[in-house]
This record gives sequence, structure tokens and C-alpha cells, in this order.
Amino acid sequence: MKPEIHKVMQTMADRACEARRAAEIRPAEDRTRAIETAAEAMHDQSGTILAANAEDLARARERGRPAAFIDRLELNQARLDGVIAGIRAIALQPDPLGEAIEQWSAPSGVDIRQTRIPIGVLAVIFESRPNVAADAAALAIRSGNAVILRGGSDSQASSLAIVSAIRDGLAAADMPVDLVQHPETTDRDVVGALLSGLNDRIDLVVPRGGRDLVARVQAEARVAVLGHLDGVCHGYVHASADAEMARTIIRNSKMRRTGVCNALECLLVDRDCLDTVWPQIARDLSADGCELRADEAAREAWPQAHAASNDDWGREYLDAILAVRTVDGLDSALDHINRYGSGHTDLIIASDEAAIRSFQGRVDSAVVLANASTGFSDGAEFGFGGEIGIATSRLHARGPVGARQLTTFKYLVSGTGQIRG
Amino acid sequence: MKPEIHKVMQTMADRACEARRAAEIRPAEDRTRAIETAAEAMHDQSGTILAANAEDLARARERGRPAAFIDRLELNQARLDGVIAGIRAIALQPDPLGEAIEQWSAPSGVDIRQTRIPIGVLAVIFESRPNVAADAAALAIRSGNAVILRGGSDSQASSLAIVSAIRDGLAAADMPVDLVQHPETTDRDVVGALLSGLNDRIDLVVPRGGRDLVARVQAEARVAVLGHLDGVCHGYVHASADAEMARTIIRNSKMRRTGVCNALECLLVDRDCLDTVWPQIARDLSADGCELRADEAAREAWPQAHAASNDDWGREYLDAILAVRTVDGLDSALDHINRYGSGHTDLIIASDEAAIRSFQGRVDSAVVLANASTGFSDGAEFGFGGEIGIATSRLHARGPVGARQLTTFKYLVSGTGQIRG
Repeated sequence: MKPEIHKVMQTMADRACEARRAAEIRPAEDRTRAIETAAEAMHDQSGTILAANAEDLARARERGRPAAFIDRLELNQARLDGVIAGIRAIALQPDPLGEAIEQWSAPSGVDIRQTRIPIGVLAVIFESRPNVAADAAALAIRSGNAVILRGGSDSQASSLAIVSAIRDGLAAADMPVDLVQHPETTDRDVVGALLSGLNDRIDLVVPRGGRDLVARVQAEARVAVLGHLDGVCHGYVHASADAEMARTIIRNSKMRRTGVCNALECLLVDRDCLDTVWPQIARDLSADGCELRADEAAREAWPQAHAASNDDWGREYLDAILAVRTVDGLDSALDHINRYGSGHTDLIIASDEAAIRSFQGRVDSAVVLANASTGFSDGAEFGFGGEIGIATSRLHARGPVGARQLTTFKYLVSGTGQIRG
Repeated sequence: MKPEIHKVMQTMADRACEARRAAEIRPAEDRTRAIETAAEAMHDQSGTILAANAEDLARARERGRPAAFIDRLELNQARLDGVIAGIRAIALQPDPLGEAIEQWSAPSGVDIRQTRIPIGVLAVIFESRPNVAADAAALAIRSGNAVILRGGSDSQASSLAIVSAIRDGLAAADMPVDLVQHPETTDRDVVGALLSGLNDRIDLVVPRGGRDLVARVQAEARVAVLGHLDGVCHGYVHASADAEMARTIIRNSKMRRTGVCNALECLLVDRDCLDTVWPQIARDLSADGCELRADEAAREAWPQAHAASNDDWGREYLDAILAVRTVDGLDSALDHINRYGSGHTDLIIASDEAAIRSFQGRVDSAVVLANASTGFSDGAEFGFGGEIGIATSRLHARGPVGARQLTTFKYLVSGTGQIRG
């Protein structure tokens, strides 16, 4: 690692530590006000932010980035207004700090109170989606954490413009501006510093990105990581499923937005409804332009489907493609999901309550849905105001991560002179 | 890593995965019964366990291990009875699995239930204290996890004898015996496999040990770690402290047991009570044989104390030694603790409620006590039945870790056909 990068990042982390200690003791209203003034500053500086984004877009087009990449990078007034509205929704969330999670008296007579506190200094490493900078900053302020943001280099100008506005908002609310920082350099050593060079100063790394970033995080991280990995979401249509409900939910789960992590990637159809429900689902999806890759049994019932290969199981297409497999009952569906799922979001459609209970009990994913679209696996839909992502780690937080999930706790033990025997 | 060790550990981890999936769907009573039969089997096999321990002790003495080491390694009937009683206490703990942590209806109308589930496969790496094997096994069974234990090589025979009894207990309750495993080999590559070679199969590593183990974990771990590091516990005597209470609590915190992680290591005395309270504390501790290492101001008030050097701040003595420093009020005490503390357990003695609130609010440790001995920073004292240790990590669990802290959760989302707009 280049020593000058390490030094820049160390200074940034030291400032973040100081800022978060100063912010933590402020009352909840000050954090609320700071998120509101950050939203106002982003609104006032819309012109600057969109101009910076136009620069990024021009450069990305020159570099020949694909259309889907450009789409994720692009801001316009409507999208920016959406981002600002998202920040305002986070300001409306209850302040999590100081909440008594549990409270009890121990046999010795001491009172124990488990109270919610910030995690500390977060590092959020994301790809070229500038809205992530705004969401992550607002969630960090709401939860009393400091955040060091590091966006993809293609969105550098947009990210810096957003962060600059948010820091102006923090200053307007008289809160420490170093709660939100983003390095000026796009040097890749920044990521190395965040993953392993500053592990005494950074409390949690949140990577949001594709396979390359995930691989790097797994190899290099010396700090706690809240992973946001693949969403290989499965939907199982049980023999007891209502055909109409199955059609509607599968269509919405697959086609509402195909590029998001909670989109359906694999449909498991019970053999008992292969000839009844499956062709109706297939007709809808084909009409919507979705490519179907099905096993042999499913192709007999809907011959227009392509043949699936073994590579199709466990794949995250993020596109208008769906893998389809026939299963013999609940156990067979569970076997497939346990083997190929990513622990993100899985779904059963059934009217048999025992089947639903068994599926929800035995599928080991962050979000296990019954009879509702996978689109509900989402922080805003959960009522969290927003999310920093959907965690697929098993520890600390799983599923949608909002402000409250970005906190930890301590135990306050209060006595009247008790000693231990 | 030797390929044969990797293979042995992989097989062990595969069996652990299977066992915990089979155990998770069993009712709570089965887990309770299994812990009880494990305790019975340990009782029935006391002779075998003590004979194995005698072998370990003979070997450890041959190797010239120090007395404190031998003491931690040694079992006798009374100690073993204590361990068995501890296991029975864990059997009496409420089963955490399936508990609804929170439950609400989202604006879309779907019902969301956050439900408690096991973490999965735990690896507990500990030093030569065979009681840890029993505690960790009982907590793992209570929480529906499988555990791979790896004790220090000096306690190998004792650990294997305990694990063998517990597995007999599992079999007697018709539960999968591979919920609890311990490798037959003492090869150090076992630790390497647990830390980094099996990261797709092991969900959490819990290291319990000294600096060497901690350093190795930090360098090698590719899997989530619940750290149990130093307990550099501070006690601050505020100007408003009741002198008698301060004497009693400080004495108990320091001298009840000096070798444990919640023992007091540093006393911070407010300058305002340096001439009044401090000499009384010093007299008690000196009479108990505690060496005092004090700063200049404190030595003026109690000249018999040794002079502290800068090396004494932040040290974990685990012995009858106490560092003593004079501070100018609360902020000065907080500065010292933030700089030298280990985030484990810290204490204030005060009668001024505002000072207590400020101290408990601003000290960033897992357990922050007021007017009670640091000895209460303990799983059994918290009412957890036992503990796998006191976590000093910031995420997931902090402080005493019992069965409930060895769980994670998933969200069950139930709808009636809702799709997302």
C-alpha cells in the first residue's frame, strides 16, 4: 500500500472517530435536524450535483461502459428528488440510540439495562451508484455512526458533490461535518486501507457490489464485514397454491425490476401443479419477454421453454431470465434451496398452512416469504425508511439493514453497593 | 496446511452441518433433555474424566507448566460437580429458538416476524481449561448450534473424555451426537482449518485464550469471530462516592479472584477524594497482599505504594497488582478509559446521579457498572445460566455470551397475495 494513501485514510478515520464521539452525546433532535438540513442542502445544490453527474456520465460513455451501468450511474432531477425524499424518510425514522432493548434485575439485586449505541466508524464501499452515498450517509447520521464512503471511480464526481452537500447540511445543523467523508483520490489502495490497514479505527465494513469486490473483501478484510452478496432468490409453488395468486406473485417477483438483488431467479414448481399452474405462469412471463430455462418435466408442460443446464441452478441472472425446476414436494424444494440458495430471500406460494410453516421454519435465509412478492424484501417496505443493503451475513444483522441495524449495544449495570460472593 | 488434517476437519464440519439441521427442527424439550442426559453421562463417567485429567496433569507437570496453568487445568470431584451443575443450569434456561424478537405489519399489509434461529456451526478454540468444553457444548445444544471444540493440547485427554460423555448423553436423548465434536489430533493445523480452511461450513469462531491465540485469529481468520480479548477493567471513584461503598466494591472487584477477565486492573481516583477515600482503599488492599502501583499524587496520600510507570496504564495483570491514577473529574477519567480501556468492563462509584448517567453514557464498553463489583460482569450473574465468555467485539454480541447470544434470526414475511407496485 502506498504510504501517502495510508496516511490520508488514517487521518480521515481519526476525524471520523472524533466526529462520532461528539455526535453520539447530542440529542436525537439534532440528528433529525442534521438529516433534514442535509436533504435541504442536496436540494439547493441539485444543479451542482447534476453537473458533476453529467461529467461522470460523459467519462463513463467514453470508457464504453454498458447501458445497464450507465443507467445505474445516471441521475436526473426526478431521480435526485427521489433520493432526497428517501433521506427525508430516514429523518422521520425513530432515533435508535439510547433505546432500552431489554431491562431486568439480576438475582444479586443489580439492575441491568441493555441499551442501544452506535457501532462507531463505518466504511461503505460501493459501486458507481451515487444514490448509495446519500442513503448511507443519512442512515449513518440517524444511527450516530460516522461513515467513510468509497464509491466506484466512475461516480467519483457525483459522489463528491453529494457528500459536499451533505457536509454543508451537517454544518448548518451544527453537527460535526466529519461524520460523512469520501476520499478525493480514486486510488484502489483506499479500499485496501479500509479493509485491513485501519482495523483499530474502523468498526465495520459494508461492501455493496459485484463479485470482484466481494472476492477482494473476503481475501483482505481484517475488520468485521456486513456482507451484501448475491440474491439467488427462489420461489416455490406448492401443490396447494392458488393458481391466480401464484401467477401474480411470480410475475411481480421476476419482472418488476430484473436487476435488483431481491428479484426472483429460480422457480421451483411442485410436480402436482406442473400441468395446471406452471403453464399459466409461463404464459405471463413469456408475454413479458422473460426467457425461461426449464428442466425436462417443466418443458413437457410448456415446450416453448429453453432447456436448463446444471449451470442454471444457483445463478443470479439480474436479467429477464428465469430458471425453472420441477420438485417432488416440500422436502425436494428445500433440498434445492439449501444447496443452491444464497441465504438472501426465498418464497413459498401455498394455501396449506402446515406447508408454509415448514418452509418458513426450514429455509435458512434472511427473508422467507409466504404468499407475497420477493419485492417486499426491502428496507423501505419493511418500514425502515431506507436501507444500506440486504445483508447475507449470518451475524449481527440479516436482511434489510436500516439505521437500527447499524447499532450495537452495551449493558449498564446499576447497583447499590453489591459485591460478589 | 497438511491435506490430511484439512480432510479430517472438513468431514467433521460436514457432520456438524448435518447434525445441526437435524437438531434445529426438534422441539425445545428435546434440547433440554439432551443437556440433562449429557450432565448425567458426565456424572456417571466422572471416574474416567478424572483419570484422563490426571494423565493431562502428569504430562503438564513433566513439561514444567507454571502453577497457575496447572490450576486451570486441574479437575477434581468438587470442580467436576461444579461443571455438571453449570450444565444443569443451562438446561433450565429458556429455549431461545423460535422466539419472536419483533413482529409488525408493514404498510403493504404483509406481516413480518423476526424469529430467532441458531447461528449454525460454531468453532470454539480454547486453552487448557477443560470446563470450557462442557460449558460450550451445553450452550451450543441449548441454542441449536453444532460445535467443534478445540482445546489446548495440554488438556487433550480431559477434553476428549468430557466430549465423549456429552456425546453419550446426546445419544441417550436420541439427538445427533455430532452436535458436539473435538478432533483426536492435537496438530496445530486444526486451528488453521477452523480459522480459514472451512469458511463455507463454519459460521462463527469463538477464540478464548491469551495473546498468542488472539494474534493468530486476527491474522488468519476468514470467518466471523466473536472475540474474547483482554479485560482491562477500570474503576473510577468519583468525588461523590460513599467511602465505605468504594472500599468494599474496589476490594471485591480486585481481590475476589485476580486471574479472571472481569477483575479490576486500574483504579482512577478523583483528586477531590484522594486524601479521604483513597487511603482507606489502599489500606484494605495492602492488607490483602495487593501490590499498588500509583502515580505521584496518589503516592503522596499513600506513600507505601510503588511508583507507577506509563507501562502500567492499560495493563491486564491478572494478578494481585493494581494500577492507581489520580484524575481531575469525570472527563479526565473518561479520557483515560477511552485511551487505555479494552471495552470489556468499567465501573464508577458515585452518589451523584448525573455523574453516573454521564459515565454510563460515555464509556464505550460492553458492561458499564455503577456502584457494584466488576464481578457482576458475568453470564451466570446476568442470569444466562452460564457463558461462553465475555465478548469484546462490537458486533452481534457484547459482554457475557450465553445461549441466546449464540443465535441469529430470520424474517418471516407472510402475505395474502400482495405484490409490489
